[in-house]
Amino acid sequence: MTSSMSWTDRYLLSAVRRIANPVGVRLAVPCKSVPAPRQSPEVPTIWVDNRHTLASLLLNPEVSFGDAYSEGRLEIEGDMVPLLETLFESTAQTLSWKSKLVSAWLWWIQLNSLKGSHKNIHHHYDLPTDFYKLWLDPQMLYTCAYFPDRTATLEEAQCAKLDLVCQKLWLRPGEIVAEAGSGWGAMSLYMAKHYGVRVKAFNISHEQIVFARTRAKEQGLTALVEFIEDDYRNIRGRFDAFVSLGMVEHVGAEHYGQLGRVIHRAIGDSGRGLLHFIGRNYPRPFSVWIRKRVFPGAYAPALREALQILEPSDFSVLDVENLRSHYARTLECWLQRFERSYENVARRFGSDFARRWRLYLAGSIAAFNVGALQLFQVVFAGRECRGIPWTRTYLGNDTAARRQQDQSWIRAMS
Amino acid sequence: MTSSMSWTDRYLLSAVRRIANPVGVRLAVPCKSVPAPRQSPEVPTIWVDNRHTLASLLLNPEVSFGDAYSEGRLEIEGDMVPLLETLFESTAQTLSWKSKLVSAWLWWIQLNSLKGSHKNIHHHYDLPTDFYKLWLDPQMLYTCAYFPDRTATLEEAQCAKLDLVCQKLWLRPGEIVAEAGSGWGAMSLYMAKHYGVRVKAFNISHEQIVFARTRAKEQGLTALVEFIEDDYRNIRGRFDAFVSLGMVEHVGAEHYGQLGRVIHRAIGDSGRGLLHFIGRNYPRPFSVWIRKRVFPGAYAPALREALQILEPSDFSVLDVENLRSHYARTLECWLQRFERSYENVARRFGSDFARRWRLYLAGSIAAFNVGALQLFQVVFAGRECRGIPWTRTYLGNDTAARRQQDQSWIRAMS
Repeated sequence: MTSSMSWTDRYLLSAVRRIANPVGVRLAVPCKSVPAPRQSPEVPTIWVDNRHTLASLLLNPEVSFGDAYSEGRLEIEGDMVPLLETLFESTAQTLSWKSKLVSAWLWWIQLNSLKGSHKNIHHHYDLPTDFYKLWLDPQMLYTCAYFPDRTATLEEAQCAKLDLVCQKLWLRPGEIVAEAGSGWGAMSLYMAKHYGVRVKAFNISHEQIVFARTRAKEQGLTALVEFIEDDYRNIRGRFDAFVSLGMVEHVGAEHYGQLGRVIHRAIGDSGRGLLHFIGRNYPRPFSVWIRKRVFPGAYAPALREALQILEPSDFSVLDVENLRSHYARTLECWLQRFERSYENVARRFGSDFARRWRLYLAGSIAAFNVGALQLFQVVFAGRECRGIPWTRTYLGNDTAARRQQDQSWIRAMS
Repeated sequence: MTSSMSWTDRYLLSAVRRIANPVGVRLAVPCKSVPAPRQSPEVPTIWVDNRHTLASLLLNPEVSFGDAYSEGRLEIEGDMVPLLETLFESTAQTLSWKSKLVSAWLWWIQLNSLKGSHKNIHHHYDLPTDFYKLWLDPQMLYTCAYFPDRTATLEEAQCAKLDLVCQKLWLRPGEIVAEAGSGWGAMSLYMAKHYGVRVKAFNISHEQIVFARTRAKEQGLTALVEFIEDDYRNIRGRFDAFVSLGMVEHVGAEHYGQLGRVIHRAIGDSGRGLLHFIGRNYPRPFSVWIRKRVFPGAYAPALREALQILEPSDFSVLDVENLRSHYARTLECWLQRFERSYENVARRFGSDFARRWRLYLAGSIAAFNVGALQLFQVVFAGRECRGIPWTRTYLGNDTAARRQQDQSWIRAMS
């Protein structure tokens, strides 16, 4: 094929190869379709349809790669996840001037103001719930699960995560808990059902709130759990504990001070809380493509940055756990299920959409595997908080008993 | 008594009372000695000998309080620890302009350069080992212990701490470990004896190194453990793991970048490490009196600041545990033992010295109790580190078995 290429094609191809090395890059015969992906070739290879795509990859590698894959102008030959891992590692330090420009521009137009957050969250979480049902667990948990062992199913691991969070917050019956960014409601319902607490759960995704309210009714938990369609900044009232899973990523670093004040207003100096969020080893912008096409306004902070939420209120960090490998495993489960429903998704939402989500899920697995992303659970307490557990032994080891409990919970939620 | 006071005395007294409130302040009859401390009076009270001491308390409260107590110009009526807790809470935000000046001046003259560190460490750790033997456990551990339960003895808790650190580092036989700031050597010896690793331990306190080498010989561990009298900045060679207990406090925030580079050089991208240090909820200078009289050059970082050590090398934080209550308990044990040897200490080192150390130990208990100080254990790993435990269940729960092992170890070390 190389022989029929023009000088321009050859020049562009070799430039892209330098960036992607050791991943191979090949050009399909112009005007012919890119070959269908084969599994496990000797060298993982990217096929590109023409010189325009090659040129765009040089100008703005990340966004162009994502868009070209979504639109079928680029194919991956071999296993997608290891290829993306290799790409992440080889290109970790390179961000072209155009990417930087796009990155800054996205930051500006996707600011997480009250209005901006609404738009950003609507973009992702207000997709039809039926779409997420195709590949999430029956509880509809869209955050990192906790696999007590590697043989646990996704359903078990999501229950184990909910229980781990409750244990880490050492919830006591009758307490009042605020949840910020409550998704489809599973965390709030679990806390109420299994730990006897009352919960006020805040979320600005209308689709999710409607779903969560239905679940609360079905479970007979409406007296204990209130789902409120509002921004975390509007949380009012006093609580014993504050919990937030997967929301810090959508808050934006410029709002950490504000989030800290909201938490302090909610739990005062005597409460405790848990933040569960995707983080980094050191500060750097979130993937430009993900922000443009999947999660507008997202930012994964370094642990150090996230501590800016807690410092001004004199909160003590009690416990930090990094569950990065658990998120890779969670995403593997999601991708497997997604692939099983791939044709269905493509039919209903179009091929571009289906390919975009495949790349997003596979890319996330790769990012957690190579450590480009981390998952932190941070437990903290106010300076007058009493009853802080003496050691971590309160974190239950009775896996068998929990599994049995989890099974009945999974059945109830299905 | 008040009636015989001059206008000046009354003015100074009421000004000091405003600062100390709700702790009472009283002036002893001039030229008469301050009354001996009574236990549990109705209002905890500070007795001051004369107007000069009062004036100094106004100008530079913290240093003057410490010095006046050490020199017997100030007495505490009632239990010392709760009184200090109340003082810490009521004066947390006030630092006089003179204190700030002294604080900045101390920072400057106690900089932890290679030479400065030597001087600073010598001041504290090169006190005769016999002094520390009076109130530390037989292993001579001068860092926060870990009490598996509240009934554990100090000896058991120090063993449990050593084991906890080894577990958190998931040490494997034959591995090579660097310890920075190795004190009297207990951590290194324990790792070698119980986990079969080889250790290079660095310390700039001559007294401690001599003691540690003797212990290594007695234990037959010289083939596995090498004690090197040198600064952490001179650590050379490659290691599987890096550990440091109670040294970060003596490094100084301006050297965190350097410490991070030393760790990275030692363990590369594939190793892991543990830092155990006194920290804060938010950045603020270390006690001026402690820096002036007890620990020159000391600084307890906020967790966020300490992460500056790890970020530039792309280390992932895997686990953070806050053992603040354990340090309060450890210090209570030390103070109890110290009080039993009080007369002995006063005879050998003088009354000022004995009172200074009593105040330092009691003040530290109070600071950990009210949350002015925290104790962080941070576990981290390089981005290519393999074998990171899947969950925390590897942290042993077999307390009974460990206790038995600990008992034999304590006997061996005594």
